[in-house]
Amino acid sequence: MDNRPIGVFDSGLGGLTAVREIMKLLPNEDIVYFGDTGRVPYGSRSKQTITKYTRQDIRFLTKFDCKTILVACGTASSVALPQIKGDYDFPIIGVVEGAANRACQVTRNGKIGIIGTNATIKSGSYVRLISTRPEGFFTACAACPLFVPLVENSRISVEDKILKLAIEEYLTPVKNAGVDTLILGCTHYPIIAEAISAFMGDNVTLISPGLEAARILKEMPSFTPCEEKAAKHRFFVSDDVDLFSEQASLFLGQSVEGEVELINIEEI
Amino acid sequence: MDNRPIGVFDSGLGGLTAVREIMKLLPNEDIVYFGDTGRVPYGSRSKQTITKYTRQDIRFLTKFDCKTILVACGTASSVALPQIKGDYDFPIIGVVEGAANRACQVTRNGKIGIIGTNATIKSGSYVRLISTRPEGFFTACAACPLFVPLVENSRISVEDKILKLAIEEYLTPVKNAGVDTLILGCTHYPIIAEAISAFMGDNVTLISPGLEAARILKEMPSFTPCEEKAAKHRFFVSDDVDLFSEQASLFLGQSVEGEVELINIEEI
Repeated sequence: MDNRPIGVFDSGLGGLTAVREIMKLLPNEDIVYFGDTGRVPYGSRSKQTITKYTRQDIRFLTKFDCKTILVACGTASSVALPQIKGDYDFPIIGVVEGAANRACQVTRNGKIGIIGTNATIKSGSYVRLISTRPEGFFTACAACPLFVPLVENSRISVEDKILKLAIEEYLTPVKNAGVDTLILGCTHYPIIAEAISAFMGDNVTLISPGLEAARILKEMPSFTPCEEKAAKHRFFVSDDVDLFSEQASLFLGQSVEGEVELINIEEI
Repeated sequence: MDNRPIGVFDSGLGGLTAVREIMKLLPNEDIVYFGDTGRVPYGSRSKQTITKYTRQDIRFLTKFDCKTILVACGTASSVALPQIKGDYDFPIIGVVEGAANRACQVTRNGKIGIIGTNATIKSGSYVRLISTRPEGFFTACAACPLFVPLVENSRISVEDKILKLAIEEYLTPVKNAGVDTLILGCTHYPIIAEAISAFMGDNVTLISPGLEAARILKEMPSFTPCEEKAAKHRFFVSDDVDLFSEQASLFLGQSVEGEVELINIEEI
């Protein structure tokens, strides 16, 4: 038994899609979440800045003596994690491996689409994992830099005209490539899964990196579960608590009111 | 004669629209520019965070012994500046007053539109200045939270479909209100002035806060010009130098290559 919490962070709200899955799969585990809402988005920034922010986020979570940290951000997982993982003496997992593996398992025609932020697509993180496999998978990638601003501005409805137009523009080449599986390579994207699916069609399977990461977390040999108990969750942000609380409840399906605290991530 | 530089800052690229005007109106003056590209955008953040960032930006520019600082950011000018201005012993000017005054001068029908970030519109900064005047001006306001992400993603063409749709959505109520003057209450917006004008029509005068601030700067009694000399300009950013240089040249109409330096704004 290990009653220490699981640490989770993201640039903003997106990581909550992973938290939701952990709550389902590991309902007794305590979770400490940090959303870097004062500096979101990460995906349009440089490698150097993303790495700096990722280190600061991990440093903050280490204060809670986490047994594992989940980097619930596609950009940080793709750009920063491979380089800095070895610098820590506790397990840190990202969202890339789980989603890449699942896509390879579920594709029927061997054609896999990958969408993410500019930084994630530029890093080649998903393509590298998928193309090294013996099956000879085909991949089609598209950077979708407006998706995170759209989600953070609550433009998530399947009827939202600007969201629809952005989806059409970014995803048309991926759709035309004939993929039957699409990795939502940023944890913000599952929030607009309905709109993405409406465009891609029912025969395209969407892969949520948050869900896959929660599964990996549960199954990894170094993970020791906590005892059976009521879970305690704490949420921290680097900008307005109320704004986050309002949106977070929508994404988590439960209220976080009174559980969110503001921190100064730069001075941690 | 005062050969000390003029300090200018913005959340990102938008403030360059003010720099361009200063270069025209005051061609001998040295300028030190800071673009907080590692934390852009400001306009979707809370008052507390915007004020913190504004103080850090000013603190950085004070290292250059600036004779004046221009807050070339509509959000920081609206939300933070009124509160913190008195804490400094050198002149700090924002972009709100100049644009508000100019709009009142040029309107023919007394109907003035104001667009800006969420934080700027919420602050009521422009409305307060315009409605206290005896002429009884009518104002119509609209927050346009996607404009900064669009500009920062170089989606500035008059043909860009997503930009066009965003303009149509945000500006339809302002247009329907019959304004003949529109304040582009964010220094990013002049970059998409052509697309905004295409929607609003030729009879609507657009007011650029950067241009008006440069005029105010030149004319204010406390401003002492430098001697006649070649101007030196320095640019600092909190994220990737190359990315900024590339885009900055477009906005300034001249290259800034080799003049841009990266700083760590959080540790200044």
